[in-house]
Amino acid sequence: MSIRIPYDTVLETAKQAFLHMGLPEEKAARCAYIHTENSLEGVESHGLNRVPRFAEYVQKGYVDIHAEIELVGAKGAVENYDGHLGIGVLNAAYCMDRAVALAKEHGIGCVALRNTTHWMRGGYYAWQAARAGFIGISWTNTESCMPMWGSKKPGVGNNPFCIAIPRKSGPIVLDMAMSQYSYGKLGVTRLAGKQLPFPGGFDQDGNLTSDPGAIEATGRILPTGYWKGSGMAIALDLAAAAMANGKSGVELDREARGSCTGCCQIFIAYDPYLFGEEEEIQAKLDDRVAAADATEPDRPGGHVTCPGERTAATRQRNLEQGIVVDEQIWAQIQQLAAGDMNVTDISSACVLDNMQEEEKK
Amino acid sequence: MSIRIPYDTVLETAKQAFLHMGLPEEKAARCAYIHTENSLEGVESHGLNRVPRFAEYVQKGYVDIHAEIELVGAKGAVENYDGHLGIGVLNAAYCMDRAVALAKEHGIGCVALRNTTHWMRGGYYAWQAARAGFIGISWTNTESCMPMWGSKKPGVGNNPFCIAIPRKSGPIVLDMAMSQYSYGKLGVTRLAGKQLPFPGGFDQDGNLTSDPGAIEATGRILPTGYWKGSGMAIALDLAAAAMANGKSGVELDREARGSCTGCCQIFIAYDPYLFGEEEEIQAKLDDRVAAADATEPDRPGGHVTCPGERTAATRQRNLEQGIVVDEQIWAQIQQLAAGDMNVTDISSACVLDNMQEEEKK
Repeated sequence: MSIRIPYDTVLETAKQAFLHMGLPEEKAARCAYIHTENSLEGVESHGLNRVPRFAEYVQKGYVDIHAEIELVGAKGAVENYDGHLGIGVLNAAYCMDRAVALAKEHGIGCVALRNTTHWMRGGYYAWQAARAGFIGISWTNTESCMPMWGSKKPGVGNNPFCIAIPRKSGPIVLDMAMSQYSYGKLGVTRLAGKQLPFPGGFDQDGNLTSDPGAIEATGRILPTGYWKGSGMAIALDLAAAAMANGKSGVELDREARGSCTGCCQIFIAYDPYLFGEEEEIQAKLDDRVAAADATEPDRPGGHVTCPGERTAATRQRNLEQGIVVDEQIWAQIQQLAAGDMNVTDISSACVLDNMQEEEKK
Repeated sequence: MSIRIPYDTVLETAKQAFLHMGLPEEKAARCAYIHTENSLEGVESHGLNRVPRFAEYVQKGYVDIHAEIELVGAKGAVENYDGHLGIGVLNAAYCMDRAVALAKEHGIGCVALRNTTHWMRGGYYAWQAARAGFIGISWTNTESCMPMWGSKKPGVGNNPFCIAIPRKSGPIVLDMAMSQYSYGKLGVTRLAGKQLPFPGGFDQDGNLTSDPGAIEATGRILPTGYWKGSGMAIALDLAAAAMANGKSGVELDREARGSCTGCCQIFIAYDPYLFGEEEEIQAKLDDRVAAADATEPDRPGGHVTCPGERTAATRQRNLEQGIVVDEQIWAQIQQLAAGDMNVTDISSACVLDNMQEEEKK
């Protein structure tokens, strides 16, 4: 069951939770802000749901809350950082800020981060670039959780890829994992006694199926677009590891520390007004989006939208009515905020995952 | 029917064809090289098959064979070019060369090209970066040829996206359109009396179908990964138009000149040895690819490969045995080489399209 909690209460409670995990004041406030922001924008799966999970990461030693990100290399428009297994969301937000600063100077800026931890919602950093008025591109590598095309066993991460385009009337932001559905989505659908809207993996007999339980049993989740998502996932992994001089997905597999611990992330920012007036470029983008949204829907009453377009409405609704949070997750965050660290992560199994993607179907 | 023609004969005949279309010596030689190279690597659909089609473009005035690419803006690691509707493959190859040169100086280089024409095989330019020892990323926008998710009518291009990672043992190169199948693939499958291996679009009743003819009838080809490919296609379009200060897909639609005439293309290069020794990085990449290729296949005798890995073998086979070319296409190229411009493009309807993707299934 989901409930709605006022924004300020969420932010303050989350901050207390992070403080009790041992984070210093400023880091706790930033972490609370980012997790709250992700839920505020409708991506609960990678927002508040991840607060108890983060507590677990800290306890397991996946994340070193006292580590500081370190500049280890730089050339021209590129910087390379070592995240020292510090807090993933803070490392990532820092790097996108640096990419934007580099883009201001060089037209384009790229930051390659290695040895970091889970960034929770990839789209956050793309939004961050867009809010600063820049085009943002980012991706991460992860452990193997998806079979490559033609394979039975997990061989590649589902390596999310994000692109954001700034618009005064609302950024367009793609936040796309390389698997058709997340494991979270499979769990939620199974618990609801439902089938997936489209086949999401293979059953024991090697047939494509929309039955979430059958896919969970084999672990054979389907790459987005079959061979395409599989190929893109491996390309993103290789590029991230080379660009950041960090660990590839298979090195993460061997270390088996779990949940992206030690992964590489890439952050690219580009100044969209380099060669055109801001007003002109904005008009061009609005024109493009308006035409897309005006295409004939496939069913009466349907609406075509571009990725990220509905986020403003979701934000507004959540600001007015309170942020949607799973009841059990909220109880755990309150428990953490009260200093009781004895929580078990329930977010992967029992709450709505991948809300943002859900919204688009 | 496909036949095999020796490499030197293909190259020389194609060059004669381009010369007879009016291209000056050097441009004709470069165009012949790139089209031949694309077929040599198994992508006939965007190699020799496009020679007659290019002749048609020239005759229709889509391409100005005498136009020269022009630098119209530059800042730091970024350059902006106007292609002046010149020869797409030459404009694109020039821009990836410039991106590599910028990356040598700034670590990363980005060239944003506007007002260009069809680049034929997107992957060529990614390979070009990889052969120069750089990571390459590129994409293009196009006219609308695919309905957005939730729509009935074409509203976005299938905007190919490419990533290449250099490896001494063979680059990994992703060349991925945002539709699950090309129109060419639908035509070929229909003519062969076959069904698509997976649903590729919608029939008249709005149901997903693997029947290529039913999809051709509605024009409702399926985005890669349903809502995902749709979202990525629009994001790539917006980014390309803003970055290059050029035309978006909807502006191309309004001009209705056809076949990417006036489109934008983005070329990014990145030096993979900025922060690590070449030998170390290469070992890391080889390790990653080897692990991917070693995952358990889903059927006895199956092999998992990464995108681009089979290309070396295809090249070698075609060099030894002759380049595969459709009989009718070859007759037309010979006709063009003899100075007879009276050919009709047959490549979209009757020859194997998207061989590269075909290979992966």
